[in-house]
This record gives sequence, structure tokens and C-alpha cells, in this order.
Amino acid sequence: MTFGTVAILGPGLIGGSLALALAERGLADKLVIYARSPRALDAIRTAGVDAELTGNPSEAVRDADVVILCVPIEAMAALVSEIRDALKPTALVTDVGSVKYSVDRDLELLIGNRALWIGSHPMAGSEQAGFTAARADLFEGAAVVVTPTPQTQKEAVDRAEEFWKAFGARVIKLSPKDHDTYVAQISHVPHLLASALVCHASPEARKLAGGGFRDTTRVASGSPDLWTEILSANAKSVATELGALIVHLKALKSHLEESPSDVLKHSLHTTLKAAQDARSQMVETNPLFKKRP
Amino acid sequence: MTFGTVAILGPGLIGGSLALALAERGLADKLVIYARSPRALDAIRTAGVDAELTGNPSEAVRDADVVILCVPIEAMAALVSEIRDALKPTALVTDVGSVKYSVDRDLELLIGNRALWIGSHPMAGSEQAGFTAARADLFEGAAVVVTPTPQTQKEAVDRAEEFWKAFGARVIKLSPKDHDTYVAQISHVPHLLASALVCHASPEARKLAGGGFRDTTRVASGSPDLWTEILSANAKSVATELGALIVHLKALKSHLEESPSDVLKHSLHTTLKAAQDARSQMVETNPLFKKRP
Repeated sequence: MTFGTVAILGPGLIGGSLALALAERGLADKLVIYARSPRALDAIRTAGVDAELTGNPSEAVRDADVVILCVPIEAMAALVSEIRDALKPTALVTDVGSVKYSVDRDLELLIGNRALWIGSHPMAGSEQAGFTAARADLFEGAAVVVTPTPQTQKEAVDRAEEFWKAFGARVIKLSPKDHDTYVAQISHVPHLLASALVCHASPEARKLAGGGFRDTTRVASGSPDLWTEILSANAKSVATELGALIVHLKALKSHLEESPSDVLKHSLHTTLKAAQDARSQMVETNPLFKKRP
Repeated sequence: MTFGTVAILGPGLIGGSLALALAERGLADKLVIYARSPRALDAIRTAGVDAELTGNPSEAVRDADVVILCVPIEAMAALVSEIRDALKPTALVTDVGSVKYSVDRDLELLIGNRALWIGSHPMAGSEQAGFTAARADLFEGAAVVVTPTPQTQKEAVDRAEEFWKAFGARVIKLSPKDHDTYVAQISHVPHLLASALVCHASPEARKLAGGGFRDTTRVASGSPDLWTEILSANAKSVATELGALIVHLKALKSHLEESPSDVLKHSLHTTLKAAQDARSQMVETNPLFKKRP
């Protein structure tokens, strides 16, 4: 089984990993890769990926049965405006953007019935970026969210699901709004906290840091450009989830300052035990919690 | 060069790793290990560690040139009260507790001039606990804080420094109060945040978690008993540092909710860039940021 001609628009970490995985698993009859910069295309040529390379996005999608938009979320709408007239009506078009509600709404309107559109988000980032960080096994065991709306055709859902499963991913269907809430909880707010923790540690404290701080703050090494874009595109959900967390932290702070020792200990133990239990369950059920990055 | 007879009181992750490292590096003429429970002693016997094992702490320290207290911080004072009359006056006594100000003050008073006392804190924990998680290389590249006070003798500082360096650790001297502030910043507050993030993520969100959330929250799998003890022993510093972080998070939340897009982006980018830069520096200068746990 193959997906026919597959066009990858934007061969960064995610797009590049898709290209490597498609080649390794023999999942495409033909692979076409578009990148805006000639230097990005050179990197792929040098890596020896068997693909047609182009700097023209419309040319890249013209014969494609599957089109994957892997450009930064702020570049999505302009790219889709440029390619939409070149799409085959039977083409499946999806993206890999980290925010869904605002982006999906725009792209759904732009694509209309020119092709089969559905949003996707592979939960497989890294603090590293670009094609040099790409890996053929990036999606193995990772969750990929697909985000059907009332306008999405069933064929688009089914084909997107089949596509991502072919890379060893677990596919989860969510509305764009629910997606944005959940990723705020497990990706966007944690990213803000990791960055805040690094900024807040004094230079003297940083010298003491061990493996715990290294891992807690790993994501804070991610690209500020990329994350500014993600966090501002999902500002509403991030603010709501951050607000809920602040309420919890303020309650902890009051306990630390004011509670008698036994009440403080009870309160701390309750939080720590609930977290330990929830995380144990994640270690048991989430394959990514077993493998190292 | 050896440290003569070394007594380890409490062979958990840290004490057990010390025992393994002393044996591997041939740093002790004789190793004596005290554990309260016969089962803990059996585990060490089974592992084949070449040491004298005892359930009597006074017996363990009677001939010791170096005594390392590796019991939970809440058990320290009672243990020291029990052993102090058996200590050699020339013995170096130190601990591995995660909180210094309150603990040091008590132990310093209890030990008086019966031996040479100085507090230590190896920054080399793990979310795993107990002798089964012990590793001979646990201290390689790790920071070990030693906490002299105005009462500490220079000989105690020098010998403690020499001791920890023999395991490949970087030794950092701090007052007990500064120690508690800095570990609140890079260990205790991050631990609370990691636990809060896990508790706050809904069951649906947890299914989406990838390698970022796994690493950001790894420490939340640590023992609730141990961490309740640590956080309540350092409650004052943790509350202060958590308070400063909450102020920062509230400012971010206001930006997310209210700022025009360009102001929000500028503010996010500033925080994210500062964090990325600070963390890059840590990756370059802190050996633990290069090796995996």
C-alpha cells in the first residue's frame, strides 16, 4: 500500500522526518518536497532523500494525492492561497501546526471544496528544529491529533487516520477547540513554565542544577520564534489554562506560608501523590514515556 | 589516597551510590554501612558490596574517620543524638540532606565539638529511590554544595571538599541560607510545578503528551513522602521563590489576555529568548546537561 504522490511543503523537523519515514517505509510512489529557500533544498539533496525538489509550491502539489503543510503556522494561509488552484480535487490536504482553532478555520475557508481538508498535529516536536534534527522514527508511538469539524468529509478523516497510522502513530480525533485546550495543558503552558523557571533561577542557582532541572527545562531551549508564534496563536486557551494553574500555585504558596506543619504536609502530600499516580499511569500507557528522545 | 574507615548511615539512592563509588574507586580502607531495616542490609549483601553491615548506628561510627548521614532529613536529629557519643573527635561528619538551614542548625548544636561537622548536599537525585537505583557514577559531574557556617572549622571544609571531589563532583561552598534559596529555585519550586502540571492536565490531555511533557514532569514521579519532607523543611524559601514566579506568570497571563498582538509577541519573545540563552549557557557549562540520566 502506498499513498501515491506525496507533497511535503516545508521540510523542517516534522516535514523532514515525514520525508525520511515515507522513504524508509516505501509509502509513496513519488515524493515531492517544496522549500522556499534553496539552502533548505540543498540540505535534502545532500542527505540523499529520493524526492523531486522544488522552490515552487504550486508545482509541488500539482500531481499530489496527499499534501502536507509543514510551514510555520503564520505562513500557512499565504501558502494555501498560493497553491489552492493547483490542488487535485481528490487530494488530501493536511497540516502539522501546533494550534488548530484559528488556523483550521482560515484554511478550511480557503480550501473550500478544492480538495479534502483536515487539520493534523503530530505531538512529536523537539527543542531542536530543522531538517538536521529530522528522524524517520519521530512518529513511532507519538500521538497525532486530527481535528475534524462539521464541514470535514468522512473520507478526509479516514485517509488522514490511515496516513498517520502508517508511521506508527496513535491517532486521536478532537475538535479544533478541544485540541487547543489540551495542548495548552500539556505543551504550551508547560513550555511557558519551563522558560519562566530558567529565567527565574539566579546565576548562582544555575550552577547547582542537576538532571532534574535539565529535564524540567529542556523544552525552554526551543526556538523563541516558533514558540512566540504558537503561544500567541493559542493565546486564549493558554491564558485560561495558565490562570487555573496560578490559582493552584497560589493555594500552595498560602499553605507554605501559613499552614501549621501537619496541615502543610497533608496538603503537599495530596498534590505530590496525585501527581505521582497520574504520571505512573502515563508511564504505563503512553509509549513515548518509555523511550528517550 | 583513601579516606580511612567510612561509615554510611542509610544506604538509599545517595548512600548506596556512595558505597558503590567508594568500592569502585578504592577510596576507603574499610566501609561500614548502617541501615535500620534488616531488609535494606540484605539488599546490600545480595549486591555483593564489600562492607561491614550493621543495624546499630553507634557501632557503625565507632571507628569511622568519615561519617555520612544519608537518612531522611526528619530522621537526622534523632540519629545524631544516638551516635554522637560514639563519634571519634577527629571524625568528619556530613550529611546529604536537600535542605540545609533548619537541619544544619540542629545538627551543629547536637554535634558541638564531638567531631568535625559540615553540611553537604549532592545535587544528584533522581525520581527513583532506594539502593536498587544506586549507581557508582551518580556524582560524576554533579554539583555538591557544602555549607560552612561561622562555627565550621576550616579542616571540615577542606576534608569535605576533598571527599566529594574524589567522586568526580564539583564542590560549591554556600551558606545554608543561600543554599536553601538556590535549591528552591532550581529544585523545589520546579518539583512543585511539575506536580502541578501533571495534576492540572485532564485525562484527555494526558493522552496527547509527548517527549516534552514526559521530561518536564519527570521529577513528579519522585516519592511523595520524601518530597513532602523536603518542601516542608524549606517552606519559607519555597514560598518566597514560588511567589516571585507567580508574579511573573500573572504578568504573562495579562499579556496573553489583553495585549495587542505585537505587544504580546514582543513580551513572549523576550521571555523565551532570555530562557533559551540562559539554558544554552547551562548546556555549555554544566556537565550534567550533556549526559542523560
